[in-house]
Amino acid sequence: MSKLWQKTTNVDKLVENFTVGRDRELDRQMAAFDVLGSLAHTKMLESIGLMDAADLMLVQQELKNLYIEIENNNFDIEPDVEDVHSQVEMLLTRRIGEAGKKIHSGRSRNDQVLVDLKLFFRHQLQQVVTETDTLFRQLIQLSEEHKDVLLPGYTHLQVAMPSSFGLWFGAYAEGLVDDLEMVLAAWKITNKNPLGSAAGYGSSFPLNRTMTTNLLGFESLAHNVVYAQMGRGKTERVIAQALSSIAATLAKMAMDQCLYLSQNFAFVSYPENLTTGSSIMPHKKNPDVWEIMRGKCNRLQALPNDVAMMTTNLPSGYHRELQLLKELLFPAFTDLIDCLQMATFMLQNISVNKNIIEDPKYTYLFSVEEVNRSVLNGTPFRDAYKQIGLDIEAGSFNPDKTVNHTHEGSIGNLQNQQITEAMDKVISNFDFKKVEDAISWLVK
Amino acid sequence: MSKLWQKTTNVDKLVENFTVGRDRELDRQMAAFDVLGSLAHTKMLESIGLMDAADLMLVQQELKNLYIEIENNNFDIEPDVEDVHSQVEMLLTRRIGEAGKKIHSGRSRNDQVLVDLKLFFRHQLQQVVTETDTLFRQLIQLSEEHKDVLLPGYTHLQVAMPSSFGLWFGAYAEGLVDDLEMVLAAWKITNKNPLGSAAGYGSSFPLNRTMTTNLLGFESLAHNVVYAQMGRGKTERVIAQALSSIAATLAKMAMDQCLYLSQNFAFVSYPENLTTGSSIMPHKKNPDVWEIMRGKCNRLQALPNDVAMMTTNLPSGYHRELQLLKELLFPAFTDLIDCLQMATFMLQNISVNKNIIEDPKYTYLFSVEEVNRSVLNGTPFRDAYKQIGLDIEAGSFNPDKTVNHTHEGSIGNLQNQQITEAMDKVISNFDFKKVEDAISWLVK
Amino acid sequence: MSKLWQKTTNVDKLVENFTVGRDRELDRQMAAFDVLGSLAHTKMLESIGLMDAADLMLVQQELKNLYIEIENNNFDIEPDVEDVHSQVEMLLTRRIGEAGKKIHSGRSRNDQVLVDLKLFFRHQLQQVVTETDTLFRQLIQLSEEHKDVLLPGYTHLQVAMPSSFGLWFGAYAEGLVDDLEMVLAAWKITNKNPLGSAAGYGSSFPLNRTMTTNLLGFESLAHNVVYAQMGRGKTERVIAQALSSIAATLAKMAMDQCLYLSQNFAFVSYPENLTTGSSIMPHKKNPDVWEIMRGKCNRLQALPNDVAMMTTNLPSGYHRELQLLKELLFPAFTDLIDCLQMATFMLQNISVNKNIIEDPKYTYLFSVEEVNRSVLNGTPFRDAYKQIGLDIEAGSFNPDKTVNHTHEGSIGNLQNQQITEAMDKVISNFDFKKVEDAISWLVK
Amino acid sequence: MSKLWQKTTNVDKLVENFTVGRDRELDRQMAAFDVLGSLAHTKMLESIGLMDAADLMLVQQELKNLYIEIENNNFDIEPDVEDVHSQVEMLLTRRIGEAGKKIHSGRSRNDQVLVDLKLFFRHQLQQVVTETDTLFRQLIQLSEEHKDVLLPGYTHLQVAMPSSFGLWFGAYAEGLVDDLEMVLAAWKITNKNPLGSAAGYGSSFPLNRTMTTNLLGFESLAHNVVYAQMGRGKTERVIAQALSSIAATLAKMAMDQCLYLSQNFAFVSYPENLTTGSSIMPHKKNPDVWEIMRGKCNRLQALPNDVAMMTTNLPSGYHRELQLLKELLFPAFTDLIDCLQMATFMLQNISVNKNIIEDPKYTYLFSVEEVNRSVLNGTPFRDAYKQIGLDIEAGSFNPDKTVNHTHEGSIGNLQNQQITEAMDKVISNFDFKKVEDAISWLVK
Repeated sequence: MSKLWQKTTNVDKLVENFTVGRDRELDRQMAAFDVLGSLAHTKMLESIGLMDAADLMLVQQELKNLYIEIENNNFDIEPDVEDVHSQVEMLLTRRIGEAGKKIHSGRSRNDQVLVDLKLFFRHQLQQVVTETDTLFRQLIQLSEEHKDVLLPGYTHLQVAMPSSFGLWFGAYAEGLVDDLEMVLAAWKITNKNPLGSAAGYGSSFPLNRTMTTNLLGFESLAHNVVYAQMGRGKTERVIAQALSSIAATLAKMAMDQCLYLSQNFAFVSYPENLTTGSSIMPHKKNPDVWEIMRGKCNRLQALPNDVAMMTTNLPSGYHRELQLLKELLFPAFTDLIDCLQMATFMLQNISVNKNIIEDPKYTYLFSVEEVNRSVLNGTPFRDAYKQIGLDIEAGSFNPDKTVNHTHEGSIGNLQNQQITEAMDKVISNFDFKKVEDAISWLVK
Repeated sequence: MSKLWQKTTNVDKLVENFTVGRDRELDRQMAAFDVLGSLAHTKMLESIGLMDAADLMLVQQELKNLYIEIENNNFDIEPDVEDVHSQVEMLLTRRIGEAGKKIHSGRSRNDQVLVDLKLFFRHQLQQVVTETDTLFRQLIQLSEEHKDVLLPGYTHLQVAMPSSFGLWFGAYAEGLVDDLEMVLAAWKITNKNPLGSAAGYGSSFPLNRTMTTNLLGFESLAHNVVYAQMGRGKTERVIAQALSSIAATLAKMAMDQCLYLSQNFAFVSYPENLTTGSSIMPHKKNPDVWEIMRGKCNRLQALPNDVAMMTTNLPSGYHRELQLLKELLFPAFTDLIDCLQMATFMLQNISVNKNIIEDPKYTYLFSVEEVNRSVLNGTPFRDAYKQIGLDIEAGSFNPDKTVNHTHEGSIGNLQNQQITEAMDKVISNFDFKKVEDAISWLVK
Repeated sequence: MSKLWQKTTNVDKLVENFTVGRDRELDRQMAAFDVLGSLAHTKMLESIGLMDAADLMLVQQELKNLYIEIENNNFDIEPDVEDVHSQVEMLLTRRIGEAGKKIHSGRSRNDQVLVDLKLFFRHQLQQVVTETDTLFRQLIQLSEEHKDVLLPGYTHLQVAMPSSFGLWFGAYAEGLVDDLEMVLAAWKITNKNPLGSAAGYGSSFPLNRTMTTNLLGFESLAHNVVYAQMGRGKTERVIAQALSSIAATLAKMAMDQCLYLSQNFAFVSYPENLTTGSSIMPHKKNPDVWEIMRGKCNRLQALPNDVAMMTTNLPSGYHRELQLLKELLFPAFTDLIDCLQMATFMLQNISVNKNIIEDPKYTYLFSVEEVNRSVLNGTPFRDAYKQIGLDIEAGSFNPDKTVNHTHEGSIGNLQNQQITEAMDKVISNFDFKKVEDAISWLVK
Repeated sequence: MSKLWQKTTNVDKLVENFTVGRDRELDRQMAAFDVLGSLAHTKMLESIGLMDAADLMLVQQELKNLYIEIENNNFDIEPDVEDVHSQVEMLLTRRIGEAGKKIHSGRSRNDQVLVDLKLFFRHQLQQVVTETDTLFRQLIQLSEEHKDVLLPGYTHLQVAMPSSFGLWFGAYAEGLVDDLEMVLAAWKITNKNPLGSAAGYGSSFPLNRTMTTNLLGFESLAHNVVYAQMGRGKTERVIAQALSSIAATLAKMAMDQCLYLSQNFAFVSYPENLTTGSSIMPHKKNPDVWEIMRGKCNRLQALPNDVAMMTTNLPSGYHRELQLLKELLFPAFTDLIDCLQMATFMLQNISVNKNIIEDPKYTYLFSVEEVNRSVLNGTPFRDAYKQIGLDIEAGSFNPDKTVNHTHEGSIGNLQNQQITEAMDKVISNFDFKKVEDAISWLVK
């Protein structure tokens, strides 16, 4: 394999295979972002006199061509090329000659991969936010649609108090709002420019890091160059934590779905073609989608720990295994986005059972309602509580099953409007527009 | 043990010991917050006609007395009382009679403990922010003080390029800024009012949840009551993730310190009374503080996973084991705050070695500098790189060791001012003032 | 605090508090084992001429006195003493003079704490095996007692095929057999003698490590002294993995119990005094014991990861934070033993519902039975499967509900005898007798 | 996609893609084992009269053909076939007609995949043991070869006492012995036959599970059919724990290597073609192999937690996400085997620095030696310790650097013979021969 840093001794083939690993396959996903980084970097190089205007024009034009090829899926990392950075530089040099070699001036592979990763992660985080928002709207719509259908509420998995499909769907919607607060924190930490940190100790060139920060639409610099390098591993960890938060919400919803689809609950159902059968049990309609989602999301819940285990106790400075974090993070985005889309799709097809509450085993749901009725009629709480308890033990408990909850967030007052406003507010804190404008300008 | 919910059958002693566990011990820490919750709740009860003005006055006065007793450490949970909520209600009833019993109206223990936990966590998060800020200032000060002292920068643990104590201290300072972004997300998720969600399904009482939200200084409601209940476990997880972020920064700094204190580096030292000796090796000055800090912080890095493992795949609705999360979270705050204080204390006493770079083994640090000098003098990068490589192999590499880095975030331009502004900005997003004002008004 | 290794400079009080941490409290549990280690070590010292016979007699007699005091709970680590080793040496010296100081010859605190931990863990593992065996017998007994009571078997939480309480209880029993294979591996790794490794690099004294190995009843030496030291952290990790295996079995059983106690299943029940009530719902009988057990066991499932996170990437040689592992492991043993005892206690009181299968929602359980009947009567499997599927869709499925399973491990042939033999065989591989004999001889 | 269990409704394409996931790709690795399972199962079916002799002969012959095709890499899972079981059955039916369909009689896909996994894991565990043994021999050889070369021993990363390359290499060798104890436990738990458990509740066919146990070379039955099903997830967890144990040993060795290759230690070196260079620093020889190994092994250390997170709190009975565990376990085996081979390869090329100890910074290594010399000459330990401490402080410490350690496991008495015997003994407990004989007989 031809390597840019190679001197005269060939690296052993075994060593190369072991250390390069899945880089070529994974780097393919970063190609567009590698080109964006070079578009910004070369403009800056020209501005400080490290590239002349003619070379810049050549380089910019060809990088833009490459960007389009990548977008059109006409890009591959050739078998004997080590990584995406080498591939881009090689193509450029092949097409425009010596000028192509100059794009690496004032950079190390360390800050090149750092900036690629940040741009890639930023892009993926935006997809996550978009898909989360879509699922959120679906949940709110179902909450409104079924707001009058009662459902047993459980504590300790024991029948407890009346709940409703309005509450159930709405609760998961509101959960996503908080999950996006974690994504926002990850976004802010990600959205800082490491370019110019070189190998993690800066450069003697008079780089203009503020300029590349603006060109790439970053919110700010990762100022200190040693800290910029520490961002490797840390960025992955905070992103993994953010993804795990959404995953935890989806996994809990999936567990509810699996329970509620069981014949012992039978609260919801799906069209037959969205469930799967059994090789030996002809009556089965298995909730495989929700089980796979639960599994994928629980795997994502373990992701932050995987990242931490691989980075803990590494002293400051770059270490080669940081490269392996791509193997953890890249599929995690794909899996989570798949799960979000699949959850939305399934919920578009859910049917809810409208007569659950008639089953006699749910009668006791209304015991607290009866206690409260007594209290509102003047009986002290502890006395009312005791009386209903005695009625239940005596078998004479016969409640009124109408539910009249009015306070904020209760069955009769779901506050889906306020929850939606909270969602809109969180999403407004992501500066997607600034990012998109910067990228458009770079590649136009 | 006397329990509020007890009917006629005694719960087996074994069962009681097993299920109550360390609650009494841990609940002690929540006592002040339990009183605050009741101060707000009872004002609200009176406003909706569920408590009369006379009772309210009695209850408020006695709760304020209790608050002072707790602050003065004159409060204990009696041996046969199950938890802090029961203790407070019992003391109240003992002192003011029947009115005391009414504070539980319109609440369940579920939302009572939820609000206590949120108030307690909010308080602890504020301490964490304060101590982090103190450590940050210490690091910035050391960065400025030693900005001219060079240090070898490592990649792959190999001597790589010149770094400086200015960069090294400053990097950890900037790391804390990002860590507080995670704490801010946790703060926002924590700072929402669950009161009024009762057992997780709301109440038929016409509660005014907006009123208690304002009285307790919360930023907003946890609107949906089912979601309010889901906050149990989730709040703990996001807080654990936030704490783990600071812990990861401290652990990495501790690892650097242990290396740099080794005779093989000898970059820093401490007064003898801050190190410890050996039972058999008379010359040892061990960095035990940094090792213990590394250990405690790595333990904190595993904390989010502990919380996730205990809550994963639990369907919606309360489950008793959520109570056990206190055993994980409560000591975590203490440990992290201890570590932050100890790191500040140690750094106040650090000495840095000012002559590190003279050692011949660090000569190669300057190879890139020399390459760049050639490039600035017109040699193409790849040619310059090759020439220096050949010089090194030939033993004729003799670099100029002055370092002239000028770009943003480099040795000569640390941007500590900008980093400090970033810190100030993050901290300004915490609404500590609003919280403090609300609490002061409640207890005055 | 008076420290054995102290020279002239006092260690700062803050440093001391931070680094000593909970050592005094936790070391108390190791006191008896510290004395055992010294009993063996001093006999060996005398045998190689490093202690004279008169001193040995004094020391042995007083150590045996101390052992009895510890057994009788008449032992404490005094407030200004750092750890259990110092306390024992100090008491000895106080009582018998200079001879007491000699017990540390040829040892470092490092191998002293290592041997104490190994002896303590070995003792705790024996308790775990004993309690696991007791629970196993209870499960086998219940399996036999209820072998004819049918239960729906679920796949995907969907009603699937007939199961039985015989199978259900027996499955958890057999699970414990495999769990003890993991405990056996942990036992073997634990049961090797590190004494004589000193600070991890051995000693210039002509120690007889084989002699102390025999005296303390270890199976063999941890031969290589560097490896003996590496056992710190590793022993804790493998023990944590072993405990987590039992914990996973208990947690799954607890989850089943919580489901089966739900009104939606109602498969099992418990006397009222083993369940707990609700502060607002008079009808609740909550399965708190099983929930707390699930929580404690899931916390234990995260334990190996906690240990790994604290030890990963530490280079070879002792590091001070290894001391903190006691805070993780010591309560883990207590928690698991509590859970095992509590599970046995609860199962002694379980009632099973004998008429579950009559409920019409379980009719489809028998679909495979009917398919198989057709196959046994000559219909090809795929045709039989299709026919029953059509019957079910047409509503004409009316199965024979007798179950006639005869093969090994099925409803009609539980093989509890073979499972019990497997358990007996695993337990026979633990050499408890050898350990007990050695200890008895040392202290008599 | 054509599915065996399909009735009339087509499963939605989205659902299918989401739930099938990477099954086809991963199942390819299980193909040979699926055929083995069917070879044994059909012999048993014939023995109980569920398959006639003519069909058996056809089926056996064609399965053996398939086995050879798989071994020769002439086997693929076709794009519209769901999994390996379907592919094998389809090929069989295509080639020998109706008889091919009968191989599924008396089985569910659940026990078919369970037995495939157990056979596959068993095979992979054997490879792991073999490669571990090879690395072990390499380490022992290096320990013997360099037994006289001294190395500083560190505690707290502080120069502490003399160690040697003999000790260092030997320590990692002995570590692998204990790691194989964990692998042995995983092997025993894996090596039990689940075949006949059907969907986890057994079958009404008179299966002879003892016969398939013997045919497949299993040590015993997973007796209870419900427990056999519980083995899914549990087997993966215990295997992950076993692999993590070897991984922890390799990761620690890799960390030592990275430190020792640093210019600040310079204890070992490698030929240039086994290290990698830098894109900007011409002098670098980076230890990338050891860094990647550390990263891969730390990722493996997190694996047991990943498995636990995905299986925790799932009630008994099959759940679809158990299928996803293949995505975790299959690459884990490949990664660990790669790491073991690479470690052996690197160690075959290691050079050790024979003059480390001459460096003045290591003089204090000998302080304990000097203390002990005084003790052996009659000075009480505490006095000798104090005197040397004062010499060091006064700068007059001038030790004799010969090391004369003679006790078991010390520098002068490494006990590599005993350690090798311990390794041989552990390996002899794996019944590889029985397994190989059974497989040979099945396919001949």
